[in-house]
Order: sequence, then structure tokens, then C-alpha cells
Amino acid sequence: VIIVGERINSTREKIREAIKARDASFILRETTGQLKSGADYIDVNCAVTGGDELRDIEWAINVIQKDLPDAGICIDSPNHLAIEQALAAYKGKGRLLINSITLGDSRISKILPLAIKYNTGLIALTMSEAGMPDTAEARRDIAWKIFEMVKRAGFDTKKLFFDPLIRPISTEPEQAREVLRSIPLIRELGASTICGLSNISFGLPNRHLINAVFLSMAYQMGLDAAILDPLDRSAMSALKTAKAVLGEDEYCAGYLQAYRAGFLVK
Amino acid sequence: VIIVGERINSTREKIREAIKARDASFILRETTGQLKSGADYIDVNCAVTGGDELRDIEWAINVIQKDLPDAGICIDSPNHLAIEQALAAYKGKGRLLINSITLGDSRISKILPLAIKYNTGLIALTMSEAGMPDTAEARRDIAWKIFEMVKRAGFDTKKLFFDPLIRPISTEPEQAREVLRSIPLIRELGASTICGLSNISFGLPNRHLINAVFLSMAYQMGLDAAILDPLDRSAMSALKTAKAVLGEDEYCAGYLQAYRAGFLVK
Repeated sequence: VIIVGERINSTREKIREAIKARDASFILRETTGQLKSGADYIDVNCAVTGGDELRDIEWAINVIQKDLPDAGICIDSPNHLAIEQALAAYKGKGRLLINSITLGDSRISKILPLAIKYNTGLIALTMSEAGMPDTAEARRDIAWKIFEMVKRAGFDTKKLFFDPLIRPISTEPEQAREVLRSIPLIRELGASTICGLSNISFGLPNRHLINAVFLSMAYQMGLDAAILDPLDRSAMSALKTAKAVLGEDEYCAGYLQAYRAGFLVK
Repeated sequence: VIIVGERINSTREKIREAIKARDASFILRETTGQLKSGADYIDVNCAVTGGDELRDIEWAINVIQKDLPDAGICIDSPNHLAIEQALAAYKGKGRLLINSITLGDSRISKILPLAIKYNTGLIALTMSEAGMPDTAEARRDIAWKIFEMVKRAGFDTKKLFFDPLIRPISTEPEQAREVLRSIPLIRELGASTICGLSNISFGLPNRHLINAVFLSMAYQMGLDAAILDPLDRSAMSALKTAKAVLGEDEYCAGYLQAYRAGFLVK
């Protein structure tokens, strides 16, 4: 599973403050911590600092690429101008991912040419102008429309990740099963799947347990990538264990290594 | 999920000693502890005490039914005479389960009439004279043969549980996936599925984590019953959480109750 580290997100107060204060060492610590814990991409979101998102994300990208030019970056913004600013600023050698597009959103025509020009991956939410779908099949149908649109535009669909949009089990208890069912349906289209993990447990206590159990199930269904906190040992332990359980960790070597490093939760 | 508590098993040294010493209070403590933790059946295995299994299992059944006449009992023996002895001794009001039969074993003709006479449930291992099958489909095919045989004999197939036989991921890394895939295949026959949990993690450290991740996956695949240690909070937490994640725990009430009781692992 490809790990997108979610920690550098301006919805977190400490990150918001670090961006406002131009505290480069804090951003770098958050980056290296996630990379060391197994992140393949570092999500960078500066959308809710209350400042100038374009300047903020350019600054954050520069901070990361200066010291860590190989780090993969996931550029996360609702604003296509901020995405463009970040892409233009990026001179590193890491892989890039854009987060995100949806169906029936004018941004798709703005972002798709950028993704092609800068040779990035692309996250598409299975959402349309009609809102969020309820069933696995409705998610697949939206994914299919986006898939065809993106393909016609000349984007390499191997770099397309669909997020079937988890909703909290506390308020919509039937939705997690639909998300899980949607994973193989979307993968049958020939695209990859990605999930933002933390929403599943919103409003409930002991969230790590819920996140870890859901992640084990999603992994079993074929999930390709997850947006999560790589410092959450519970989720990362579940992933490493799920890999061993499903016979994808030869001689359980990865599991045993994590155990010896004291990384696994009990 | 129906829980069969596995603790009263003569392969455990303390149980073996308690049986030999006729220590009724120890057996009762092990029974009440499992019932309080959510066991629906108490597995009773006296097969490897080195003594007289028929006398031993009769004693253990009598100990349990005297104080706890409503407890469900899972009579666990490779010896059909011990099973018969236990059934004849039982005067309680709990449900009964026999553990187990296999295909191509003369015991099936001995045990089936007992299961019908005493109106018990029946666990069948998906094993034949040719040994243990490797694929999900081979497990289903054996289950189907047993299903037909048992049905022809007049046994109520609603009370039939198939155990697809987990093997350790440390030695047979591809088998867990086959067991998981076999669950819906067997359920399509119209029978239930049961797994003995602990074998999955044999030979590896931090076994609770592996057991819990596997159990989350098996639950998702539709597992009907599990043979496990109900005092293993990690496995029980995974089950309660899996139930909430899949929308089978209204308002997450069971999850929240377990959380407030301090029962859930972090």
C-alpha cells in the first residue's frame, strides 16, 4: 500500500501556526518523521491558514524540497491556482500527486492539463455535482465517468487514484461497507483506489482501533493507497500485519522486522 | 459472531492439571470468565490428560452443568466414545455443539446419529482422507460432500458449521487468503462457517495482533463463529469494532458500551 502522510495539513492548529510563522524546521520535522515511518508521499495542505494560500503552499514546497528533494509530494488544495503555484515551484526529484478532482466540477479542466504537464499522479473523489453517492455501484459509476474523461484528455490512467469517500460510521453506519465493496469494483475499471482513513471514526472514542480494523478490511479488498498519519502505530501495525496475513510479506520478514524494532502495537 | 471459548482444553497445562486433580473450582472459574467475556459456548477438551478421557470429560461436564446449567457446551474430542459419554452425562439446558467430524472418517457414522439424537450443532473440518485442501474451492468441495451426507442422514444443516482449517502464515503464507476466500463459498452452500483462530499466528511474535487482523478480515468475509480465547481483549475488541464498522451495531452502541467498560484495546 502506498502511504500518503497526512500530517502537514492546515486544518491542524500546529501546522497552521508553523505555516503562518514560516517555521521551516517544524515543517521539516513533520516531513522527516513521516518519511521515516514509511510515507511514500507527504500531503501538503495550506488551504485554511487564513493567509494567502498561494504564497503559503509555495513556501511549504520550497522548505521541503530544499532539504528533502527526493520526497514524494501530494499537493492538496481545493484551489487550482494554489496547485499550479505549487507545481511551478517544485524543482525536486520526488514523485508528485495532486489531491483532488471531482466529477462535474470546473476544476477538472484546469487541473488535468497541469497533471499532464507536470507528469503527476491524480486523486479523484467519487463525487459529482449531485453530491456524494451512497452505494458502491454509484461510486463505481462516477469513477467510470472520470476515468473516461481523464483518458480522453490524454492522462495516463495508471496514475489515477479514486477515493470512494469514507463517511463516519457514527452517523452513516452503512457507508463503510459500501466503500469496502466499491474498492474491487473501481479496481476492475483499471484504476487504483485510495482512502482517507480518519473520517471513518469521526465522533467516536478510541479512534485508532476503528481506523486499524477498517484498514485491515480495506487492505483485504485490494486498497492501493491510504492517506493517514504514518506515525499512527496502530494503523501502520495493521497494514504490516495485513500484508503478512495475506501472504504478501515473504517469510513474514517485514512483520518480524517491525516487531524487532518495537514498532508493532500489542 | 458466535463465540466458542477455547480455554478449557487439555493441551493447556493448567487445565490438564485441574482435570487430573479434579479441581472443580478452577474449571468453574475458567467457565464463568469466558461466559462473562461473551462466550456462547464453552469448548471442553479432555483428550490429552493422559488419563481416562471418558471419565475426565464426564467429570468436566458435570462440574459445569451443576453450577451453570444454561452454559452452551462444545464437546471437543477425537474420540466418538468420549463425545457419547459427555452427551449422555449432560442434563443442562444449554445448547450443545460437537467438535468435530471430517470427510472420509469412520467417526462421521458414529457421531452423526449422536448429533441427531441429542439435537446438537456440529462442527465439520474441511478435511478428507486425502488430507488438508490447499485452495478455497477444494475446501468448498469437501464441505459440499459433507453437507450432502449429513443432510441425507437427516441432520438439520442449519446447525452445521464448517471449519476451513487455518494454517500458520509463518509456514504456509498463502493459506490465510484461501481460508478467507472459502468463507463466502462455503456459506453459499447454506451452511455456517467457524474458525479456530490461534493457529494463524503460530510461530510468530505478538500473536494477538495477527489474530485480531485476521479476525477483522474473516468477519468481513461473513464468518459465523470463532473458536478463540474470549479473555483475549485484542481479538474481542477487533470483533466488536468490525461489527460497528460494517454497520451491524446500531448507533455503535455495543462498541461504545465496550469502550466505557474499559474493555477495548487502544
